[in-house]
Amino acid sequence: MGGRLFIVCAAGLLVTGCFKQKPVDQNAESAKQIHQLLDNWSKAFAAKDVNAVMAMYAPGAALTAYDIVPPLQYVGYEAYRRDYQDFFAQYAGPLRVEMRSVHVAAGDTVAVAFMLERVTGTLKSGEPADFWLRATQTYRKTDGRWLAVHDHISVPADMATGKAALDLKPG
Amino acid sequence: MGGRLFIVCAAGLLVTGCFKQKPVDQNAESAKQIHQLLDNWSKAFAAKDVNAVMAMYAPGAALTAYDIVPPLQYVGYEAYRRDYQDFFAQYAGPLRVEMRSVHVAAGDTVAVAFMLERVTGTLKSGEPADFWLRATQTYRKTDGRWLAVHDHISVPADMATGKAALDLKPG
Repeated sequence: MGGRLFIVCAAGLLVTGCFKQKPVDQNAESAKQIHQLLDNWSKAFAAKDVNAVMAMYAPGAALTAYDIVPPLQYVGYEAYRRDYQDFFAQYAGPLRVEMRSVHVAAGDTVAVAFMLERVTGTLKSGEPADFWLRATQTYRKTDGRWLAVHDHISVPADMATGKAALDLKPG
Repeated sequence: MGGRLFIVCAAGLLVTGCFKQKPVDQNAESAKQIHQLLDNWSKAFAAKDVNAVMAMYAPGAALTAYDIVPPLQYVGYEAYRRDYQDFFAQYAGPLRVEMRSVHVAAGDTVAVAFMLERVTGTLKSGEPADFWLRATQTYRKTDGRWLAVHDHISVPADMATGKAALDLKPG
């Protein structure tokens, strides 16, 4: 009876594809988790809470970031944490962030989110800051948990004038 | 005998995890395919062959690109193709491209590659062009084939001067 039950069970699983590591709803669940990470990040960023911001990132050398500001790349968690701290230190009071055209692609172990973001705040000089940027974030799933391993944050450049295009708006 | 064979077979497969949709070497094979795409792209880019360049991208609205030049985003294959054409049209003769610090992360249906790239060429004005940029490319696997669905290409911006940092080199 045990053997017969096992045959039925195994055959059933084969037919229904239950052994597929990534059925469709797993990817949907992952996409939901990525959206939750983005939501957590937004709140932490607005509050300039560097610890809460960094909670979504992979530790140590697993993280490489291409930020809006030089250098070309920030290698490692600590370097990127300092970059966030330097950014937050330039602003008085909280920031605001608005996301638009958010895309999420989630597979079994690798996921990506990309979107346009409007960042608004007041610099410590009193000057207002208000710009749209592009953000692409890559995640890896390790021990059942999604962590960001790569950020790419930028504004376009006007190659003729050499100016950073900080005044663009989504079309 | 058939039933017993099936039990042994099914149990063996369960133990060895043969039903996992993405065993480790599948991801390694995917990473190899992504590296091949990057290699193809480099050759096509150097030759300013827009058809060969565009062969790696997903058709229609599945493609969204954040390029080094405005606007904030290029939505769709045709818009990005025109952007490549406009870029190539600025240069006399072939381009050179060198990739450094290439990372590839490949899952079952989503993969990402990111790297620093040095682009060298001669503008039609006769002026030399030589700059390092950051490139992040996202792929989706459809019908067994990897196609790029998202590019993010940029140089950093100096927020104090408003200048695009076109003269940076990897540290």
